[in-house]
Amino acid sequence: MTSIQELLLSRIRDVADYPEPGVMFKDITPLLADPAAFTALTDTLAELATATGATKIVGLEARGFILGAPVAVRAGLGFIPVRKAGKLPGATLRQAYDLEYGSAEIEVHAEDLSDGDRVFIVDDVLATGGTAEAAIKLIERAGARVSGVAVLMELGFLQGRARLESALNGAPLEALLQV
Amino acid sequence: MTSIQELLLSRIRDVADYPEPGVMFKDITPLLADPAAFTALTDTLAELATATGATKIVGLEARGFILGAPVAVRAGLGFIPVRKAGKLPGATLRQAYDLEYGSAEIEVHAEDLSDGDRVFIVDDVLATGGTAEAAIKLIERAGARVSGVAVLMELGFLQGRARLESALNGAPLEALLQV
Repeated sequence: MTSIQELLLSRIRDVADYPEPGVMFKDITPLLADPAAFTALTDTLAELATATGATKIVGLEARGFILGAPVAVRAGLGFIPVRKAGKLPGATLRQAYDLEYGSAEIEVHAEDLSDGDRVFIVDDVLATGGTAEAAIKLIERAGARVSGVAVLMELGFLQGRARLESALNGAPLEALLQV
Repeated sequence: MTSIQELLLSRIRDVADYPEPGVMFKDITPLLADPAAFTALTDTLAELATATGATKIVGLEARGFILGAPVAVRAGLGFIPVRKAGKLPGATLRQAYDLEYGSAEIEVHAEDLSDGDRVFIVDDVLATGGTAEAAIKLIERAGARVSGVAVLMELGFLQGRARLESALNGAPLEALLQV
């Protein structure tokens, strides 16, 4: 484990029984509150994005906004929010995805993406990969390509990696920490 | 109007009849998608925060996350998310505020704030000021002080400024644009 990984891991707090009994939630708010850790995370993700030739950064609502927006500014790229359905004004593309019980939808402004764009997706956690997979579909439906995906933490036991790698067609999936 | 203000204003899109008929929504997604505009906004807000002696940046969910998080990284300060009720794990402080119809609640992790902290609040829009006023109360209940508030846009006709200035006790309220 690198010194940056050690720093990041030391700032993630385990919260038992959230959001439901038996679940150990990984809380990133102590990391965000520590400027050294948050800056190291931002710089690392920005380097990964740049290495893929990204032209835009997508962040997934809501914690992906907190990580993705500084990455966009640091890398000198535009930021595109992918939001839960009903939150973006005007014309949008909408994509459904399955939840444990039922389904949900996310949206993007297609006009903020163009054919030549290479889009790098940032989120805090890779769990089942359902949201990120839906985001990949949205970006491709808008005519752009996905240059890669990066998350702070991968919850390996939920096996989202196989699902996402299938959707990514060879583009990289980077997880800074396995938790 | 300064050249930065002109740049920012040129990247805000009017969307008619959103979220309801008769309302002209100010959409900031074109600004976020433009690296020059998003960087200028981040730098301007970070300078305002630093000038108040801020030690932490608070962003209000969800668009305040997109603006506040890069400001925190740019200023070298920790970022504290103020979230809608039920989204933060573990022990929180909770504050209710009035909406046009009914009320809502926001939360913060009090442990991420300390007595000596001077907290600068960032959001996209100042409308009635209800959410920002509730955030000020939360921060003060956590034992910290508010060093100032900055928003990208002030909707002057909703008269949120008087309400917030009363809560701010002399700390500055900065609005980059009047719309």
